[in-house]
Amino acid sequence: MGKYLPNCVTSAEMEALHGIPAGWSVRYSGVQQRHQVQKETVGFMGARAVENALQKANMTLGDIDMLISAGGTHDFVIPNQASIIKSELANSDKYDFPAIDIDCTCLSFVTAFDFASKLLDGNTLKTILIISSEVSSKGLNHDNWETTTLLGDGAVAAIVTYEETPDSYFIKGMQKTYSEGTYHAIFEGGGIVNYFKDNPYTKELYSFKMSGKKLLKLGKFKLPEFITAFFSELPQNIEDVDVVIPHSASKTALHIFEQSYAFKTNQVKHTLQNYGNCIAASIPLTLADCIENKEIKRGDTCFLVGTSAGFSIGGLLFRY
Amino acid sequence: MGKYLPNCVTSAEMEALHGIPAGWSVRYSGVQQRHQVQKETVGFMGARAVENALQKANMTLGDIDMLISAGGTHDFVIPNQASIIKSELANSDKYDFPAIDIDCTCLSFVTAFDFASKLLDGNTLKTILIISSEVSSKGLNHDNWETTTLLGDGAVAAIVTYEETPDSYFIKGMQKTYSEGTYHAIFEGGGIVNYFKDNPYTKELYSFKMSGKKLLKLGKFKLPEFITAFFSELPQNIEDVDVVIPHSASKTALHIFEQSYAFKTNQVKHTLQNYGNCIAASIPLTLADCIENKEIKRGDTCFLVGTSAGFSIGGLLFRY
Repeated sequence: MGKYLPNCVTSAEMEALHGIPAGWSVRYSGVQQRHQVQKETVGFMGARAVENALQKANMTLGDIDMLISAGGTHDFVIPNQASIIKSELANSDKYDFPAIDIDCTCLSFVTAFDFASKLLDGNTLKTILIISSEVSSKGLNHDNWETTTLLGDGAVAAIVTYEETPDSYFIKGMQKTYSEGTYHAIFEGGGIVNYFKDNPYTKELYSFKMSGKKLLKLGKFKLPEFITAFFSELPQNIEDVDVVIPHSASKTALHIFEQSYAFKTNQVKHTLQNYGNCIAASIPLTLADCIENKEIKRGDTCFLVGTSAGFSIGGLLFRY
Repeated sequence: MGKYLPNCVTSAEMEALHGIPAGWSVRYSGVQQRHQVQKETVGFMGARAVENALQKANMTLGDIDMLISAGGTHDFVIPNQASIIKSELANSDKYDFPAIDIDCTCLSFVTAFDFASKLLDGNTLKTILIISSEVSSKGLNHDNWETTTLLGDGAVAAIVTYEETPDSYFIKGMQKTYSEGTYHAIFEGGGIVNYFKDNPYTKELYSFKMSGKKLLKLGKFKLPEFITAFFSELPQNIEDVDVVIPHSASKTALHIFEQSYAFKTNQVKHTLQNYGNCIAASIPLTLADCIENKEIKRGDTCFLVGTSAGFSIGGLLFRY
């Protein structure tokens, strides 16, 4: 895995800039610092994360069979983001692997990892690059302290490969979409419904909105049955997994999740305090940091789990 | 398969409305009529196409294990389009199958079909809905006659299922992205690069642009080697396939493609004249019409092939 983080902005700086009382961010959002782009784009950050991952894996673009961009923010409406990330890589013209977007907002990385595990056949596809690069900072309404202090930017890349007899492998993936929560998180402007032409910029229309209470209520109701269903035919349950990485949705969501099970100390890992909620990049950023800090070792079972706008819950179990 | 088409607009009507000389559309774009939304959204059209497909297949939402939205246009930035299509279906709250977006612009249906064939395992996944619903008419700059007369709106849904010993089956899929053409087709405004806030609406920025000549040149150069590679390890070549459905990219692109091989009369099918270029919906609209008109019969081999912004070429061979 590799990552790219733009400029770090502390919560004290954010609070001073947007007239938010000192200490509000840590207290309510749980975020001490987040990273925010200056001139970087989704494509630029994604490409730098790819370079970092390739370097660590001692691989080159010549080893890649497919590039998947897995995220909810995009540089342009057309072309797709994966093509843009590919084009930002040195000598990309020399490589003709396909560049495909998968979008389930915050769950995009989990979905892409699940899909990749089924696409890798060892024949036409041996190595897939998955990139979650997200710029949330442009879509913030600074009158809304919750989203202003919660969200962050960042990019992370993962290389997943096929092996005939692997020591590390995908175990199970599952995702469910609960349509009663379709619009609990929304960015209303800029699409077909509120088209640019007839809808000039207002910070209400062109910013990310979430109904925090509705999301928490739906998550609290659906997550336990999702987890039960996920582990129903597996030999282990969620408390037996070595490392659990929940999406950094919010401080309250993480707290509820951690209190719902008899987790051991340090079994649950997240990076909310350091990165905020980076949409699809949050889960893989935590994963990358855990691998780097040796908090996940080869042979560990690891469970990724999260919620996304739409409203979906997704989970993925693998052995690292 | 099922479809939904909004209001039909003839080229004579379009020409009168936008001050284009009579006959220009048929002569230069090859489009006699296209459909354009009035109040319909991407989600609404997609859901109606799903209902049409389910009805024809004598199935219900209870038979669906996954919904994939495969397209390049979206109702909102967040949530993803698949969640919106799902929510527009009656009683969608009662079904919790996942709703996932795949975006390769014009190739999205081909990519989703390819992915679905590898995801369907007969165990957790037996039936996948793929929907390509596109609204291109809002993103047109009417000073540009080429795009104004070429593009159309429409939605189409396909149900793909797993069978243990099928008579109809996926044979091969392939996609390649050539980064020298990343920006040959672009919609510049509305993403992270030209953010809404600092970029008020102008028809230049917020409309679809294509460098027709550059696209044709790159396609002409890359398509023959793509086709050769696609069929290199197969027993047949492109001229042996029963039905070939190229993407309705443009009149010239279709002409070049049809002249490049010794196709038999009626072997190549497209719907440019009736629907225009409906982005990802074009190929499956042609496929749906061919099935309905019995121009494709059970047992026929069928080759879908197209280009997309990014710049990609994709192909998929299956037996219907």
